[in-house]
Amino acid sequence: MPKYQAPLRDMKFLLNEVLEIGTYSNLPRFSDAPPDVVDAVLEGGAAFAQEVLQPINAIGDRQGCKRNPDASVKTPDGFKAAFKQMSDDGWMAMSADQQWGGQGLPRVVSMPFLEMCSSANMAFSMYPGLTRGAAEAIQEGGSDEQKKTYLTNMMTGKWAGTMNLTEPQCGTDLGLIRTKAVPQPDGSYKITGQKIWISGGEQDLTENIIQLVLARIEGGPEGIKGISLFIVPKFMVNADGSLGARNAFQCGGLEEKMGIHGNSTCVMHYEGATGFLVGEPHKGMRTMFVMMNEARLGVGLQGLAQAEVAFQNAAEFARDRVQGRSITGVKAPDKPADPIIVHPDVRRMLMNMKSFTEGARAFAYWTALQGDLEKVSPDAHVREKAEDRMTLLTPVIKAFLTDRGFQCTTDALQLHGGTGYTREQGVEQFVRDARIALIYEGTNGIQALDLVGRKLAANGGRAVFGFFSDLEEFVAANEADPRMKPYIEGLQSATAQLKEATMWLMQNGMSNFDNAGASSHDYLQLFGLTAFALMWAKMAKAALEREGTGDAFYANKLATARYFFERVLPDVTSHLAKVKTGAGSVMALPADAF
Amino acid sequence: MPKYQAPLRDMKFLLNEVLEIGTYSNLPRFSDAPPDVVDAVLEGGAAFAQEVLQPINAIGDRQGCKRNPDASVKTPDGFKAAFKQMSDDGWMAMSADQQWGGQGLPRVVSMPFLEMCSSANMAFSMYPGLTRGAAEAIQEGGSDEQKKTYLTNMMTGKWAGTMNLTEPQCGTDLGLIRTKAVPQPDGSYKITGQKIWISGGEQDLTENIIQLVLARIEGGPEGIKGISLFIVPKFMVNADGSLGARNAFQCGGLEEKMGIHGNSTCVMHYEGATGFLVGEPHKGMRTMFVMMNEARLGVGLQGLAQAEVAFQNAAEFARDRVQGRSITGVKAPDKPADPIIVHPDVRRMLMNMKSFTEGARAFAYWTALQGDLEKVSPDAHVREKAEDRMTLLTPVIKAFLTDRGFQCTTDALQLHGGTGYTREQGVEQFVRDARIALIYEGTNGIQALDLVGRKLAANGGRAVFGFFSDLEEFVAANEADPRMKPYIEGLQSATAQLKEATMWLMQNGMSNFDNAGASSHDYLQLFGLTAFALMWAKMAKAALEREGTGDAFYANKLATARYFFERVLPDVTSHLAKVKTGAGSVMALPADAF
Repeated sequence: MPKYQAPLRDMKFLLNEVLEIGTYSNLPRFSDAPPDVVDAVLEGGAAFAQEVLQPINAIGDRQGCKRNPDASVKTPDGFKAAFKQMSDDGWMAMSADQQWGGQGLPRVVSMPFLEMCSSANMAFSMYPGLTRGAAEAIQEGGSDEQKKTYLTNMMTGKWAGTMNLTEPQCGTDLGLIRTKAVPQPDGSYKITGQKIWISGGEQDLTENIIQLVLARIEGGPEGIKGISLFIVPKFMVNADGSLGARNAFQCGGLEEKMGIHGNSTCVMHYEGATGFLVGEPHKGMRTMFVMMNEARLGVGLQGLAQAEVAFQNAAEFARDRVQGRSITGVKAPDKPADPIIVHPDVRRMLMNMKSFTEGARAFAYWTALQGDLEKVSPDAHVREKAEDRMTLLTPVIKAFLTDRGFQCTTDALQLHGGTGYTREQGVEQFVRDARIALIYEGTNGIQALDLVGRKLAANGGRAVFGFFSDLEEFVAANEADPRMKPYIEGLQSATAQLKEATMWLMQNGMSNFDNAGASSHDYLQLFGLTAFALMWAKMAKAALEREGTGDAFYANKLATARYFFERVLPDVTSHLAKVKTGAGSVMALPADAF
Repeated sequence: MPKYQAPLRDMKFLLNEVLEIGTYSNLPRFSDAPPDVVDAVLEGGAAFAQEVLQPINAIGDRQGCKRNPDASVKTPDGFKAAFKQMSDDGWMAMSADQQWGGQGLPRVVSMPFLEMCSSANMAFSMYPGLTRGAAEAIQEGGSDEQKKTYLTNMMTGKWAGTMNLTEPQCGTDLGLIRTKAVPQPDGSYKITGQKIWISGGEQDLTENIIQLVLARIEGGPEGIKGISLFIVPKFMVNADGSLGARNAFQCGGLEEKMGIHGNSTCVMHYEGATGFLVGEPHKGMRTMFVMMNEARLGVGLQGLAQAEVAFQNAAEFARDRVQGRSITGVKAPDKPADPIIVHPDVRRMLMNMKSFTEGARAFAYWTALQGDLEKVSPDAHVREKAEDRMTLLTPVIKAFLTDRGFQCTTDALQLHGGTGYTREQGVEQFVRDARIALIYEGTNGIQALDLVGRKLAANGGRAVFGFFSDLEEFVAANEADPRMKPYIEGLQSATAQLKEATMWLMQNGMSNFDNAGASSHDYLQLFGLTAFALMWAKMAKAALEREGTGDAFYANKLATARYFFERVLPDVTSHLAKVKTGAGSVMALPADAF
């Protein structure tokens, strides 16, 4: 059975020594997160993830969810109790506003907890994750009364929330939505239609489920400009907050999937269900995008989280399993063979995983910090800069972390050899679970299009030029330090190639949009690698400053940084070459030639 | 439900127009394969794969195999009838010697059939595949009496065969085998021990199962030099060929796995079972390696086969599914949205798959042709050259085709979006099935070590220098043709980088063996890409010669070749960069730092 140990040392290094969150202690939210609170959150969160969520991860995979004849859904054994504990102990609402029952901690402080939960049990973590997303959408776009009615119970995990977007004929292209909303005299709407792939659409964890549903108000505009967002509670909420009548929708079936079996993936039938409009009519996508952007960071974190737990199990297997002898001579003469960690190709896989997880963690936490600064900084320039970074990098985080995170899970399986392919060992579950993260919340191809089609051009390229400044300012500030040379050189080279690719896109993507589309995937990969290079250079700097303490953590961090620059970053060159070929050979064949 | 259509046009192109097997019609085996026979094999094989094997593929995945309380094993519905038909219709023995009931066709002619079966039903195809491998081992190392007793029934599929190598404490490192063989007065041995992960170790398809078992003769040398190979039949074979007593072994359990559920993966308990030594005592690995090398080509073919069927389903989905509009303007005004094949990033995934499957097919078939020439050419130089190519390229085929083939299955899933993640659609089965091929018959890491540690140095580097000559001779013969320029340039560049990497390894791998181990993976990838470049250049040449026929097949082949050179081959550069960093950063961390 797989194990999980929260990487607290690395998390603390990032929060305290790389991001230096202590320097923001004069700002709102940060002022509520002094070091002892942060430590308590990390230690307590680790205990919860390791002791409560991890033990029911394999159970969830094997049992899956069951739909009963009455259309109710049973989640796997232990899920209900774990959800209740998560809610009761205050974990759900950590970064929610105090007004809605939260502790109001900075988002960056909640990242380690979210990562730990997702490493320990990804299928479970989707229930609170989507609840948080739905609550944030209501907070963003809902009326005061809606906030008052729903937010506290959702933020604290008494109730759950969902996102109802997909229909059989539309996933990526939400303009094709057919679910109808018919206005009622009392101001509510009757919602009718079928939604599919609704994570947590029905479950037995919470006493109420607040569905957020995209639907088309009868007579509204066609396409994406006629989509509105509705709150559709499973049980109506009375004026005093108590629960009333059961609403007219139900779970029509559960989807059998490759993984995340512990999460219920529901077909939802809305049969004239009562719904309440969120925000303005036909403007539902605006609020939904706010929610999706937040959710995309969470999905990127899932890529990291599954890579981390897979890596940990691979590392343990590599130290324990004896097989063959080191090619440079026997290393464990007391054993029948050497532990396989002596073999360079095993090391290569471990180093790939380690340099990914640590780089991804830095990237995700740094971006989350931007999300906080965007909200709480008193300086308009800082807020704008933070928002630019956050907006620009969200598709990169989502796609790059899930692409490479999935690759780590499959490398971890590979490192286990045949053992990894057996269900008993458990690493194959990480592969199956991690695979969905490349798809949902917008496929990774959509993320790449979002990056090149929207994010680059927004505000005249302000965000991407700002990011180039981030890269160049770091280089300028550190290039005089000879110890930083190996990292600065790599960062400079990646930056130059990212700029070259960006210029190529600006010149060629406008004259032929297919050039932008055809190069978007490789451009995003190049972007992700360059962002990782910045993160690794930042980490190297922080480690160099503390190397003299003799703590091996810092020497190991520098060795891993060196691996990243030598062994991972060279991929930028082939991505650049691919970007610059454009759409020609990509689009050359007629559709029937495939 | 997924579909499969054998790519007969491409197969014929390779056999007739690229490999030109007709030019060998004066040689043994080839003389039995005139064009009408080859066509009949292709058409009949396609019908068998599509109509018999493909329909029971998803059934096999869902039902899996069941072990009964009496230790017998039930394979999925339809498997037994399909196996009988495969045997009765003569498909099993296609390339077996006529002496043993075969048709004696060249191996290269059997490749399309093996590919089709593996595309249609990988789990099923392992039963005949391992039977063929076991029969070939007996043919290679067995006594005349053993051949007479077992070969015809195994080659024709009346009986099945297996390979029993792995034990709980040893997979890659077979020197650790503990299964014991105790000599008996009658010349037989009593075999005792536990074997795991034995594919087809027990099943209900055939009336007898011939286990090939690696075991240690009591008192023999320790380690790999004390391993002997034994024939251990499930039912003893009487002198008249009839079946006698049940041997003393049984299936102790079935392994639950990520995929290939239709294939029984058995724990085998040998309890003083009667076994017959194959070849000399303590020399079992020699025969087993012959068998494994053959099997490795077959596993490479599985990588191609799963990529092909996944690609076909992805292409169909991309043509059918409408979602969004082309970024260059509406393409299907009569539909609510354009088919997703208009989107460049969807094309990119399809072109990756298409350029892989066609390149892999050429590479695998070309290598199989070398296997034929090695056996039947009257020219000693041709035989030596063919054997060198076959030996050198076997680990490349195994690892590169399974690595990138698996990537294709996961890209095909990605192209399906959420649909791909559901079990109902079926593409996720290809991902789970294909995953094992990177592991069994020697993990891909072992293949890379085999390439750099054994194959490069063998006979003073004769094989690798011979392969460089293959590359250079093709360039020299075709560089004057201006139409070949885009392909020749890419081939030259890849060749130069492969040579540079080889020289680096020769200089640095000997001084520090860890350098060779740390760079072996990237070296193999670089090797595979370069071999693909040669194949694509050969295919481009054959297509250019026929482009004037107006058959769109040739224009499409050239467009796909161009995609390969522009969009796939650039990866050589980053692999070379990684090779040349050596072991330093790979081995820098202490084992407890992971």
